[in-house]
Amino acid sequence: MEWKRKDLIGLEDLEKEEIEIILNVAESFKDVSTRSVKKVPALRGKTVVNLFFEPSTRTRTSFELAAKRLSADVLSFDVSSSSVSKGETIVDTAKNIEAMRVDCFIVRHFISGAPLIISQNVSSSVINAGDGCHEHPTQALLDLFTVKEKFGKIKGIRISIIGDILHSRVARSNIWGFKKLGAEVFVCGPPPLIPKEIEKMGAKITFDIEKAIENVDVVYLLRLQRERQKENFLSSLKEYSFLYGINEERYEKIKSKAFIMHPGPMNRGVEIKSEVAEKDKSLILQQVTNGIAVRMAVLYLTIGRKI
Amino acid sequence: MEWKRKDLIGLEDLEKEEIEIILNVAESFKDVSTRSVKKVPALRGKTVVNLFFEPSTRTRTSFELAAKRLSADVLSFDVSSSSVSKGETIVDTAKNIEAMRVDCFIVRHFISGAPLIISQNVSSSVINAGDGCHEHPTQALLDLFTVKEKFGKIKGIRISIIGDILHSRVARSNIWGFKKLGAEVFVCGPPPLIPKEIEKMGAKITFDIEKAIENVDVVYLLRLQRERQKENFLSSLKEYSFLYGINEERYEKIKSKAFIMHPGPMNRGVEIKSEVAEKDKSLILQQVTNGIAVRMAVLYLTIGRKI
Amino acid sequence: MEWKRKDLIGLEDLEKEEIEIILNVAESFKDVSTRSVKKVPALRGKTVVNLFFEPSTRTRTSFELAAKRLSADVLSFDVSSSSVSKGETIVDTAKNIEAMRVDCFIVRHFISGAPLIISQNVSSSVINAGDGCHEHPTQALLDLFTVKEKFGKIKGIRISIIGDILHSRVARSNIWGFKKLGAEVFVCGPPPLIPKEIEKMGAKITFDIEKAIENVDVVYLLRLQRERQKENFLSSLKEYSFLYGINEERYEKIKSKAFIMHPGPMNRGVEIKSEVAEKDKSLILQQVTNGIAVRMAVLYLTIGRKI
Repeated sequence: MEWKRKDLIGLEDLEKEEIEIILNVAESFKDVSTRSVKKVPALRGKTVVNLFFEPSTRTRTSFELAAKRLSADVLSFDVSSSSVSKGETIVDTAKNIEAMRVDCFIVRHFISGAPLIISQNVSSSVINAGDGCHEHPTQALLDLFTVKEKFGKIKGIRISIIGDILHSRVARSNIWGFKKLGAEVFVCGPPPLIPKEIEKMGAKITFDIEKAIENVDVVYLLRLQRERQKENFLSSLKEYSFLYGINEERYEKIKSKAFIMHPGPMNRGVEIKSEVAEKDKSLILQQVTNGIAVRMAVLYLTIGRKI
Repeated sequence: MEWKRKDLIGLEDLEKEEIEIILNVAESFKDVSTRSVKKVPALRGKTVVNLFFEPSTRTRTSFELAAKRLSADVLSFDVSSSSVSKGETIVDTAKNIEAMRVDCFIVRHFISGAPLIISQNVSSSVINAGDGCHEHPTQALLDLFTVKEKFGKIKGIRISIIGDILHSRVARSNIWGFKKLGAEVFVCGPPPLIPKEIEKMGAKITFDIEKAIENVDVVYLLRLQRERQKENFLSSLKEYSFLYGINEERYEKIKSKAFIMHPGPMNRGVEIKSEVAEKDKSLILQQVTNGIAVRMAVLYLTIGRKI
Repeated sequence: MEWKRKDLIGLEDLEKEEIEIILNVAESFKDVSTRSVKKVPALRGKTVVNLFFEPSTRTRTSFELAAKRLSADVLSFDVSSSSVSKGETIVDTAKNIEAMRVDCFIVRHFISGAPLIISQNVSSSVINAGDGCHEHPTQALLDLFTVKEKFGKIKGIRISIIGDILHSRVARSNIWGFKKLGAEVFVCGPPPLIPKEIEKMGAKITFDIEKAIENVDVVYLLRLQRERQKENFLSSLKEYSFLYGINEERYEKIKSKAFIMHPGPMNRGVEIKSEVAEKDKSLILQQVTNGIAVRMAVLYLTIGRKI
């Protein structure tokens, strides 16, 4: 199979084989960031535009570094000071920037579906860097890459995703990705934050945190958005931490060969105790490292082979 | 004739032949942005500084891309968080940055004349990216380029500029440019926004929108600044749209071989109806595309041939 | 002697010979910024990250240009819109960015010691770009470079630093640097702003401005932070200007072969009269120019020779 898409909107759309292509290409790019000269000329003369309608320093930085290590030119379109804030539609904005002959848009938007709409209106590539509660495909791809790197495979791996599943695009993309590659996925969290429909995606629901962390290979903690408390989904962060946070005691229940993952940035003291975050089982920084390789792969596949 | 200026402050200063040089060089650069590797080494090792005292995502982005496609290093000097906001003069700011051995300043300022003052105090090049109600020369150059591309010539072309002429630097630069190259220029808009003095620049005033759009080759719509209503120049946007906006009916009156231009971003529903903006006569996106080539030409001519 | 440090935190830590190495390497880089192609490939493929927790356009720009002229990739991590503002620790932030395989952090922080803490927790290089009231080593290095360039030596030079010594990291770094290289350092300013302990660093205190400026080779004026008035360290800026500002009369008392220096940006009318700032004795713009060479040297020494 060969990569043929101009865009990456979500893992729901992808075939198992397409995900594997990305992971394989990422594998070959991982080495670039360990060299003394961390740069290859693959995307020289290409223009990549960051179009972030929601602030995100980490993801933006990771994409920017990935693009620069492929020798692309990167432009950050500052949405807040642009005409977007004067009522221009996102499609007009994108078409205008596209007219400057750019090759790729990295789009983050607080509305689910915004990257898809843009992708349907431009011939440049569009990569979804997180849209509403929908998908965050490159996060899931780097998570898959990290698990594969640690266990040598994804098939048969048991992973528990813990936290606010309802609002999490990271959870959705990971469920699609891990299920397609043959893993067994459990979700756990406060009942108001676990939608019943998630079972249709193939995840198994449990409300018992102890069960969720025992006998799995990966304990995947979501970042708890503090806003959820104001919105009455949660009574208190302290209670959340008590009921679902990973403390020393729970840490000991995790299998000795299992790992803890987190999309970052951690809320120390909420979803994970500070002492635990530093321990050996944590893959958090390795996830960040792998994010560069995976994003290089996605950029390369979507725009690098056009003539 | 040869290009000899270090700066580009306005089209009022330029000889017809100088404008033609820019358009010719732009012609030769247009091709670069259509290649797979959109980059030439013409300005490698040069430093271009964006000095924007007024927010502008589009123009800044266009200059930045133009500079990067010529392989220059681009720096954006964030005026709002700098010492400029602490009372430093613009000349001190520019001299300080110049001391870092930069080659070119791209200056946008809300005060007419600011780029000129800077240009008189530094030996680096200064390109005016829009100053107050004075000039926006690269916008006019890209408009001239686009008209020449469509009609094969500027001489004899009839163009109507419609909107707030009083406050428009785009209108002023375009009037200078089109008149110098032999076009016939009409201006039309609400009487309080059409200064009588504009006739001294060679433009003909009409208050009759129907006449303004019939029998011309180019209908050039200015962006209406919504602030003008608060300042009592306009009774309402709705009235403006009714009296001067291009709707379906007026669109039909435009000659079949004529075009609609707009400096962007459009106020859909004000100066142009949404349906009309999408139609064939619109050159809006082609203007954006040509902006890159024209700005590459201006950068190359002002700084590229120094030793 | 050879350069062995991964970080540059302050001049207090450096041996005299290490300072001389930096000045010598800066000497060899100064020429780069005067060429037509202002770029050398020394740091190609390296990633330099600006991590500024305090706004600073000038210093950030100077480091960015220095890095780009060495062909490094530069990333500005916007602290205000990042998770730092959501309560993440600076060490977590730095470790996360480091996981993207960056080579160097340029850190400015309002807390004294923050760059040191980061440097102890990452294996990437850390360059202090100013921390609280502690140190601003590259400023002092460029000042040393400028004095050496003018006088051919530092040893035996007499320099008076005038202003708010108490809060000045520039003063501290300069006292360490000039003393280590054999200069004689005097400090002068309003008594509440001259800490007695400064004498332990080897500086001599005088409260008599006339004495401070006579018979020295360099009159170094600090930027007066207007906030100090609110904090009751100063009764008024006008009084400060009257008592310690360099006006025409004081200017005449400075030795004919002496120079005035200032870290910029000047408060015209406060620490220096506008007319005086323009005169021949001022080295202010030469300091800015030398800042690029010195920062290139520091970047090159800390990260350029790793494999």
